[in-house]
Amino acid sequence: MTTSTPVTPPAGAAGAASPRTGAAAQCSPVLPGRGALRPLGFGEARVTGGHWAERQAVNAAASIGHCLHWLGKLGWIDNFTRAATGAPFDRAGREFSDSEVYKLAEAMAWEIGRTGDPGLEARFRELAAVIAAAQEEDGYLNTMFGHPGQRPRYSELEWGHELYCYGHLLQAGVARLRCHGEDDFTRLCRRAADHVCDVFGPGGLEKVCGHAEIELGLAEFARATGESRYLEQARLFVERRGTHTLGDGGFGRAYYQDDVPVREAEVLRGHAVRALYLAAGAVDVAVETGDDELLEAVGRQWDRTVTRRTHLTGGMGSRYIDEAFGPDFALPPDRAYAESCAGVAAVMTAWRLMLATGDMRHGDLIERVAWNVLSGAVHPDGTSFFYANPLHVRTADAVPPTDAALSHQAAGGQRAPWYDVSCCPTNLARTFAQFAVYLATADETGVQVHQYAPAVVDTVVGGARFAFTMATAYPDDGAVRIRVEANGGGERTVSLRVPAWAEGARVTGPDGAARAVEAGSTATVTAAFVPGDEIRLDLPVAPRWTVPDPRIDAVRGCAAVERGPVVLCAESIDLPCGADVAELTVDTSVAPVERDGRIFVSAQVHDRDGAWPYGPAAPQEEGKSAEVALIPFHRRATRGPASMRVWLPTG
Amino acid sequence: MTTSTPVTPPAGAAGAASPRTGAAAQCSPVLPGRGALRPLGFGEARVTGGHWAERQAVNAAASIGHCLHWLGKLGWIDNFTRAATGAPFDRAGREFSDSEVYKLAEAMAWEIGRTGDPGLEARFRELAAVIAAAQEEDGYLNTMFGHPGQRPRYSELEWGHELYCYGHLLQAGVARLRCHGEDDFTRLCRRAADHVCDVFGPGGLEKVCGHAEIELGLAEFARATGESRYLEQARLFVERRGTHTLGDGGFGRAYYQDDVPVREAEVLRGHAVRALYLAAGAVDVAVETGDDELLEAVGRQWDRTVTRRTHLTGGMGSRYIDEAFGPDFALPPDRAYAESCAGVAAVMTAWRLMLATGDMRHGDLIERVAWNVLSGAVHPDGTSFFYANPLHVRTADAVPPTDAALSHQAAGGQRAPWYDVSCCPTNLARTFAQFAVYLATADETGVQVHQYAPAVVDTVVGGARFAFTMATAYPDDGAVRIRVEANGGGERTVSLRVPAWAEGARVTGPDGAARAVEAGSTATVTAAFVPGDEIRLDLPVAPRWTVPDPRIDAVRGCAAVERGPVVLCAESIDLPCGADVAELTVDTSVAPVERDGRIFVSAQVHDRDGAWPYGPAAPQEEGKSAEVALIPFHRRATRGPASMRVWLPTG
Repeated sequence: MTTSTPVTPPAGAAGAASPRTGAAAQCSPVLPGRGALRPLGFGEARVTGGHWAERQAVNAAASIGHCLHWLGKLGWIDNFTRAATGAPFDRAGREFSDSEVYKLAEAMAWEIGRTGDPGLEARFRELAAVIAAAQEEDGYLNTMFGHPGQRPRYSELEWGHELYCYGHLLQAGVARLRCHGEDDFTRLCRRAADHVCDVFGPGGLEKVCGHAEIELGLAEFARATGESRYLEQARLFVERRGTHTLGDGGFGRAYYQDDVPVREAEVLRGHAVRALYLAAGAVDVAVETGDDELLEAVGRQWDRTVTRRTHLTGGMGSRYIDEAFGPDFALPPDRAYAESCAGVAAVMTAWRLMLATGDMRHGDLIERVAWNVLSGAVHPDGTSFFYANPLHVRTADAVPPTDAALSHQAAGGQRAPWYDVSCCPTNLARTFAQFAVYLATADETGVQVHQYAPAVVDTVVGGARFAFTMATAYPDDGAVRIRVEANGGGERTVSLRVPAWAEGARVTGPDGAARAVEAGSTATVTAAFVPGDEIRLDLPVAPRWTVPDPRIDAVRGCAAVERGPVVLCAESIDLPCGADVAELTVDTSVAPVERDGRIFVSAQVHDRDGAWPYGPAAPQEEGKSAEVALIPFHRRATRGPASMRVWLPTG
Repeated sequence: MTTSTPVTPPAGAAGAASPRTGAAAQCSPVLPGRGALRPLGFGEARVTGGHWAERQAVNAAASIGHCLHWLGKLGWIDNFTRAATGAPFDRAGREFSDSEVYKLAEAMAWEIGRTGDPGLEARFRELAAVIAAAQEEDGYLNTMFGHPGQRPRYSELEWGHELYCYGHLLQAGVARLRCHGEDDFTRLCRRAADHVCDVFGPGGLEKVCGHAEIELGLAEFARATGESRYLEQARLFVERRGTHTLGDGGFGRAYYQDDVPVREAEVLRGHAVRALYLAAGAVDVAVETGDDELLEAVGRQWDRTVTRRTHLTGGMGSRYIDEAFGPDFALPPDRAYAESCAGVAAVMTAWRLMLATGDMRHGDLIERVAWNVLSGAVHPDGTSFFYANPLHVRTADAVPPTDAALSHQAAGGQRAPWYDVSCCPTNLARTFAQFAVYLATADETGVQVHQYAPAVVDTVVGGARFAFTMATAYPDDGAVRIRVEANGGGERTVSLRVPAWAEGARVTGPDGAARAVEAGSTATVTAAFVPGDEIRLDLPVAPRWTVPDPRIDAVRGCAAVERGPVVLCAESIDLPCGADVAELTVDTSVAPVERDGRIFVSAQVHDRDGAWPYGPAAPQEEGKSAEVALIPFHRRATRGPASMRVWLPTG
């Protein structure tokens, strides 16, 4: 799918020199100085309905407030106030809890940019003031180290997460700069970034952080402020990684990617979120410094990771013990870790690679992750979350209480309101707030549409306004209608991603002529569009059987049902006679059928007894035939305790 | 296989009242006061050749000395000397390192009983003196708690392992009492046992240890000393377990079986070694107190564990993160934890259940574990060990250095000389030293043969001597010849376990008449044997294909080859063109063939490329046909780095 061949970005194809439609065009988390595609800001792309509008509305109405409540309740905000006093205090939370406050600040800043909500603006300022109070004279900011009774600053870079926290702070600073402009908070961020450069710059402490994140934080903050010093520091951190500046740690150096230099690695490995943040930051550095070798190296690693270390849902990470990638094709559905934050980070990496290379196939992975990992990680009501997103839950776990934080190593059967390690809720909140930017990009010749949703795009192409609306009930319906609303220029090209699964897709231009387009390609329509012109893309979204590569041992002999980008699953709730999903086999010779908006498969439900479970081959006992309803994976665990599986045994 | 129906042990069928052939008959780790079968001591059963004789010789010549070396090198023995000074000291090792010293003492005590080695006797005395010096006036003995600068005694029962350590001390005491008799070491053990009863008895500290072991230690020590107080204390510990006397802990109460009372549980769960030691101790208590309800409860839990939570190798435990059982049928071969110590503990539990109930089918599991887990956990040279025993190793790990302890969470591709948590080497050492006792048992009517190996059995049945030799090249050859050497009585019955896999087995009595015997049954031959009479059992040991229960998701669509009880595996070393085992598929329509002592299967070796690994069903590309040699799983990783798998994809 995303077998990118990194290409040298055409100089000046996009970037700072490109015209924008006002300040809101800057409301975008990644604005590279060069690259094949130019991202759009909130002023240029907007979701107007459907699933993503709903997710954004719930995020604004429920999730952001929920996170603020929990950060307050657990004392993770109060840590800043207490650190500011200068007196010893009993700090709450884990070593990275400051970053949750920053990620929430980032979510709020994007959301303010999206809606201009004055209540949220007031809450942002309150939070920013609390953070500011804890910053030291020299720019240092962390509530875990350096205060009376605490360990010294930067004494424990393997696990201390100090630079990781700055990375998130700077991403919040980027959001604030772009959606609001310079203020006390962004100045605080500048002081912090300067401090990092002072301490970790040439001749300083030549180390990296055990959790990558500062790299992409500094690189984007350099883009947002124009300060090349920050980019140089990001570059230094990327280059140092893999040179054993960290200790061996409990899980070995691969855990934090300090085993091999970034440009020499062959695949993403170790802790999945660390690996993906590092990859994203390395792309940023490669793009801004013109380091095509580095860009190509990350592209190669990404391709192998997507084709050999990614679950059907787009989830990444196979290991509970270290939240890590496993070896190639080690993709157990029941122990899929597929952390929600790894989903966020996978979108970040794929997005950066696409902007750099122009390869629209990266949009397939973004779509897959967005629908299956990110959407499913948050309950439809916005107040409970999955940390891990396994594709198979064997036991029908009870729904956890709404007032207690769960262990993040819980088996993943039900969403929890919060976790002891609670990186996911705030990470999801900032991602949903900024989701509109992933819809489309522009270049000098036209607009590229990456995600299909009811939306408005209103941007500038070749110096002239180009605007359209997109109407669709995708993926319930495969028809996507794009109606041009304004074209201030002449001939323009609209490029449409045709997903790799979309065998039989067709595109119809404004002239009414329909043609077949290849799955896994880009459908382009070039015309001197006038308002009212319509482009129609028809994607085949009938539910389909999907089988795994025979090398994926853990799901051999199974099939899954997908509908467009949406992965479906069986829940025991939908099985007859209280059966468990362990007793289900399906008949893939019968296509899944849709009836009254539900999708059904032909199945057998077995009732098997116990004996030594290994022996000579014997015909499997017939089960009871049944038609079994499947539901979208992202809607699992919303109807009470259930066992669940995506991969359904075929015999 | 081992679907035991616990039966009420016939009162007086065996036990203390039974005649024995001298003191060496007492050299046996489990001597129940009642039960269906009477275990034999070293004086009654002896391995005289073949695989097990070799394992015992290597254990004596290499492993015991190796363990002594490492315990010295790491300071785990020195902890006792330093604790004895009364001054603060920097203690070496984890909280349970004392137990390694005790387990080694136990191994030495059995080995002294087996061979009478005077050098070993001298080393045992030295070690015992070091341990003795650290015992407090009141019997307390632990180098981790209660000394200056340490946490108070029994302040951390969840993780402190104090009672666990006593359990191993008492097992060493049992070995010493039975193979040598009362001495300073056994008196030390008595003081420790009394101390435990004083502190944790009625009206005392009503808690249990986070790691079960004291239960079976006390129960057997009660048997060895005749002190009913120790049995009563064991009973109290078993009854207290599951009543939440421990905190919730990091992994939840099921981790240390404190979730549900023993007699109410449905299956073994949580940390596998903890669960199995507890089960073994509960059987001891049930047998000695006549608690048939408890015996039946453990039997039920065991049956479900064997039929739903056990790997083909007999390995138990599916989880790296907490070394625990997974849910039913969650048996991933690559992440099979199947800890070596869980193998030791599984043998302990199965053995106790068999003695209590007389159900010889438990011998199948003992045989499977002994051949595949225990034998494979030690390198043939006796100086490196597996902690985890997965059935699939995806990456060809380098052989670790011989002078460094590895993390016990290492992926299990190669044996290491020692581990940070190094419970397995000493546990294996004590088990190999005592292995002869698992060969056979007796009752009032005859002898039951459980394991087939060159051996001598010389015991007393019905008050009269009954002796035979066993000659066999099993499992390379399926013929087992038992030649009666002495029969002081009249009619006697020799019972032979017919393994569940042994379809087509035949038994021939002294009259020369052969008859078919059913797989999974007991073949009995009853006669008024005279010296020279021969019984012959023919077991079909041609290599065979074995397939898994369809509910074992992780190995669906695979088959394995077994030869008798021995599980085979493919190693990449044996594949053509440097291929990896990931690229192998086998043709199960062709039976495995044996040629020149090696076993071959028909296979294809593939060379597949990378793309998004999920899509519509497509015919698999043909691979290159090859005949691939398999090796016994217990001989894996003895020829350098290799990827390895037991379960071979069939397509």
